[in-house]
Amino acid sequence: MKLYGDLMSGNCYKLKLLCDLLQLEHEWIHVDILREETRTPAFLRLNPNAKVPLLELDDGRTLSESNAILNYLASGSALLPQDRFSLAKVLQWQFFEQYSHEPYIAVARFIGRYLGLPEERRAEYHSKQPGGHRALRVMEQQLQDTDYLVDNRFSVADISLYAYTHVAPEGGFDLSDYPAIRAWLARIEAIPGYQPMPTN
Amino acid sequence: MKLYGDLMSGNCYKLKLLCDLLQLEHEWIHVDILREETRTPAFLRLNPNAKVPLLELDDGRTLSESNAILNYLASGSALLPQDRFSLAKVLQWQFFEQYSHEPYIAVARFIGRYLGLPEERRAEYHSKQPGGHRALRVMEQQLQDTDYLVDNRFSVADISLYAYTHVAPEGGFDLSDYPAIRAWLARIEAIPGYQPMPTN
Repeated sequence: MKLYGDLMSGNCYKLKLLCDLLQLEHEWIHVDILREETRTPAFLRLNPNAKVPLLELDDGRTLSESNAILNYLASGSALLPQDRFSLAKVLQWQFFEQYSHEPYIAVARFIGRYLGLPEERRAEYHSKQPGGHRALRVMEQQLQDTDYLVDNRFSVADISLYAYTHVAPEGGFDLSDYPAIRAWLARIEAIPGYQPMPTN
Repeated sequence: MKLYGDLMSGNCYKLKLLCDLLQLEHEWIHVDILREETRTPAFLRLNPNAKVPLLELDDGRTLSESNAILNYLASGSALLPQDRFSLAKVLQWQFFEQYSHEPYIAVARFIGRYLGLPEERRAEYHSKQPGGHRALRVMEQQLQDTDYLVDNRFSVADISLYAYTHVAPEGGFDLSDYPAIRAWLARIEAIPGYQPMPTN
């Protein structure tokens, strides 16, 4: 299988981390986001929504959306619960991530770290701060009660939220007020097979 | 089981429609979004993320995020595929809905229809138009090839995308350029058990 992605993106890093943890063989194909390589005609044929990550199976079928790919690849492993309610809770956290977390934290990080906080996007960057902290508070509340997000067991839900939470300071989010989140980050980073996000 | 929601929200209507189609017994508890009833202390105890819809099971466990609830309730029915790849494709469309569709189409509809397009949100309303049309084009492309979004069979993926697509004109999105979407909407509305979104 082929995974198309750019490791500056937390959405892409999720899949790399899963592959490392489960030792899944794959070919990683770098698609440069800043050079808009997701908008070339060749890439649009693979994903009309012009986004990475993208999975291409050996038979040519494709799958987009980071959390959909994550759950597909983790299917049958200990990282994806089989119990119906636990699985629904994993999805709850993943939809939370895409709707209430990523649009604030990942976007602020992109503007701050990768675009260098240009004047014309400074207002947008600051507008992302309250929403990001709201999401962090929801996570903090859960992680004060449990070591991991679902069933007190490490799962793909943790991978989904780890991806952008651990680099939230790059978007201006100080994590010092979130001790339970910081302990959870350290717990994940101690899991055998864990590999950090490349810094470039 | 109890479902907390406000039927002016497509995210809540998804669950009502699923319950109608599968004839699932439930108690519907109205939570008024415009009156900010999702922010009361009592509701925040049920969902710290302050959003509807919310499912509360008879044993008191709760589940949030419309698509997570949808898949939980559809589990075991013909509306949620069991095949691993088909299920992943359902998730792909649901994450697409929450990230690339809802934030444009549902938000423009909310500003236009429910807030009455006030002057101070007019720029935001207009800024939502290109992204909404991008999402509609991705759907149109798929629905030119297949009658439903996944495997040519009606599934929860269609319910997820139907909810806000069929009221997209209320957000200023003219659907006349999307014939495949319009045919798909009509196909869904002809399914036995279908109930329209209440107009209020």
